[in-house]
Amino acid sequence: MTSELTIGLLGCGNVGAALVQLVEAQADDVEQRTGIRLRIARVAVRNLSAPREVELADGVLTRDTHGVVTDPSIDIVVEAIGGIEPARGLILQALANGKSVVTANKELLANVGAELYTAADTAGRDLLFEAAVAGGIPIMRALRESLHGEPIDRVLGIINGTTNYILTKMTDAVDFGGDADYAAALSDAQRLGYAERDPTADVEGFDAGAKAAIIATVAFGAKVVAGDVYHEGIGAITAAEIAIARRLGYVVKPLAIVERDNGEISVRVHPAMVPLDHPLATVRDSFNAVFVEGRFVDSLMFYGRGAGGAPTASAVFGDVVDAALNLQSGTHRTLGALAPAAIRPIDESTAEYLLGLDVADRPGVLHAVTGVFAEHGVSIRVAEQEGNGPDARLVFITHVARESDVQATVRQLRDLDDVRNVGGLLRVIGD
Amino acid sequence: MTSELTIGLLGCGNVGAALVQLVEAQADDVEQRTGIRLRIARVAVRNLSAPREVELADGVLTRDTHGVVTDPSIDIVVEAIGGIEPARGLILQALANGKSVVTANKELLANVGAELYTAADTAGRDLLFEAAVAGGIPIMRALRESLHGEPIDRVLGIINGTTNYILTKMTDAVDFGGDADYAAALSDAQRLGYAERDPTADVEGFDAGAKAAIIATVAFGAKVVAGDVYHEGIGAITAAEIAIARRLGYVVKPLAIVERDNGEISVRVHPAMVPLDHPLATVRDSFNAVFVEGRFVDSLMFYGRGAGGAPTASAVFGDVVDAALNLQSGTHRTLGALAPAAIRPIDESTAEYLLGLDVADRPGVLHAVTGVFAEHGVSIRVAEQEGNGPDARLVFITHVARESDVQATVRQLRDLDDVRNVGGLLRVIGD
Repeated sequence: MTSELTIGLLGCGNVGAALVQLVEAQADDVEQRTGIRLRIARVAVRNLSAPREVELADGVLTRDTHGVVTDPSIDIVVEAIGGIEPARGLILQALANGKSVVTANKELLANVGAELYTAADTAGRDLLFEAAVAGGIPIMRALRESLHGEPIDRVLGIINGTTNYILTKMTDAVDFGGDADYAAALSDAQRLGYAERDPTADVEGFDAGAKAAIIATVAFGAKVVAGDVYHEGIGAITAAEIAIARRLGYVVKPLAIVERDNGEISVRVHPAMVPLDHPLATVRDSFNAVFVEGRFVDSLMFYGRGAGGAPTASAVFGDVVDAALNLQSGTHRTLGALAPAAIRPIDESTAEYLLGLDVADRPGVLHAVTGVFAEHGVSIRVAEQEGNGPDARLVFITHVARESDVQATVRQLRDLDDVRNVGGLLRVIGD
Repeated sequence: MTSELTIGLLGCGNVGAALVQLVEAQADDVEQRTGIRLRIARVAVRNLSAPREVELADGVLTRDTHGVVTDPSIDIVVEAIGGIEPARGLILQALANGKSVVTANKELLANVGAELYTAADTAGRDLLFEAAVAGGIPIMRALRESLHGEPIDRVLGIINGTTNYILTKMTDAVDFGGDADYAAALSDAQRLGYAERDPTADVEGFDAGAKAAIIATVAFGAKVVAGDVYHEGIGAITAAEIAIARRLGYVVKPLAIVERDNGEISVRVHPAMVPLDHPLATVRDSFNAVFVEGRFVDSLMFYGRGAGGAPTASAVFGDVVDAALNLQSGTHRTLGALAPAAIRPIDESTAEYLLGLDVADRPGVLHAVTGVFAEHGVSIRVAEQEGNGPDARLVFITHVARESDVQATVRQLRDLDDVRNVGGLLRVIGD
């Protein structure tokens, strides 16, 4: 006894086209397992005559997005157009018309997610978004369902493939010789299609920031938006910093960090030093991974393809099957009541920090420099001198310290006569 | 508007006690998010006066397991006693009495799972078992739900912490000097509580085999039982083999392998050589990981604690929350119709193989040996001589070959005059 459920697809780019193929390839298998026959009934696109990787039956393609989300014969709407509008309006219309919705749209959810989750609950329909964070990796379901009852302390994510690819290339160049230059690695990434021509959203951390806001929302049940996320890009990372990190037993990775401490939530995106024996250290190239620290479950890591048409479509399809089963049984998934988020300002966040200083190679310099750290209550875990004479350089790793204290230390160090240059700060992830 | 759902717990060992603590710690949070108040109403134990890590209210402890599974006031039964009987009978009774059931019992599911899944579907209740495979790692939900529509080709798992710990210690000893002996590593594991006094179930692969059968059942929607699993233990692995593997760019790991090819399912547990740059190579000590290869999603890996009271209880609790939500909405999860499994015999399975031979150091020996490989259609990818004179040794890695052909090759090599000894076969995992 099979029932047919129909899908209305908004957008037919990489992900949309891969979804069409996946539904064709797997409809029999899903039907055999669930008794539900899935069929893509309508596909709304901007340009009917654009070349496409998939063939669609006559009458399936349309330019009428509004028609798709209000079509009474459509059960599930998949939004794959991206951006905030018109996606937001179309999803609200779809829900109001009793359709379940699946989306991969991180920008939308990170900005107006709360409105959409409420609309889905009001309609009694699913709003599922596995593919919005870390592509094919089923981290949303793990956080929403498997870890529903787990007190989560921290989530560390490599959730932007472009920046991971660039830092991996720079690290390999430092290790094996070659051009460890940021610009060269970026242009490599652009040539391979891992980075956009305008790479700002990736390299400045906006893409990872939107995903981090969604992770924080789901992990902590709190309303966290893109605007709450502190971010630093990877553009200032140098080969010298990567080499120092390496020598001290770390690798520099582009991290999104989501933490809850004393009821306050900290959400930030920046490059950080990860210990070489940490599972995140082995996540290379454009792969993504999400590392979850819970009080009972200890450590979990989810690893896979964070982007690409097929992996993303796989996540969307998992949501579609889920939505179909829920429609059939008359239920829906909910994030529950989201609490307001108390966001901890970046100044009050804490971490270990690496700091490199070019200094005069003179007795007493280390004493003067460490005095500045002490004055601001920043305790030092590692202090090393590299090079001699004109190349003299001091490298410090602090114990866990407050951002504002470390920044004050840096400002005062800049005024010391014997300090020629203060390098960038790199945060260090503890084991 | 809160509704209360009550839990009846069968067994209060490590996992049961950790679950009691988790429910106490998280009941408020779950209530706030879901509107459901969870309470442990009954706990059935064998010995009422045994010392326990948790305090229970008066009247909660009982010796009457039957009373718990038939108590009309109990909504969800958590089975944490292990073994096949009486667990099987109690779960069937609980389901027949309209309770949803959560279990961590791999032995039970790997042997009589199909009967229980059917009983759950008939009762319209959940039978959830996230904790049965890989402890705190949410791999069951990922396979059951997120990857429901994904055509899965292969799953590679490090799903036994004991054997992973032992092989990690042996590998470290080979790398850094020290005692790389199997017996020493095992006694180390026993001292630390990672291995039982009788380690058979772990080191011979029975534990991993039961979990592999469950993974195959869920991944392929087919009835695979423990008896279908081929297994080899890790007891024969030598420091020399680990060292050779290392030199050739591999690490020896205890793997469970679940594959589907041409409609046939292959399920096996054995040590194998994993390339050093494969994500599974970095899964050390007693950690577990499950690596999933799907046609669309590409590669996924799930990493975490495969055992221990708290991580296992975390997985059980996730299932309890899920079951509670499903009871409230009047739905339940199902594995769907399970197909009969066509199991591929081990003789017909294929892999790359490493084979080491002690040989006479004489011209013509390599020619004679490679002739035997050729005769059985086994193609060689790497051939190396190690040592000279009386220590002369040939090491081969084959291309992908059939098990039966490789075994025939080994038998014939044993009869060659110039071959003094044929070492163990080690299968090699391709990238």
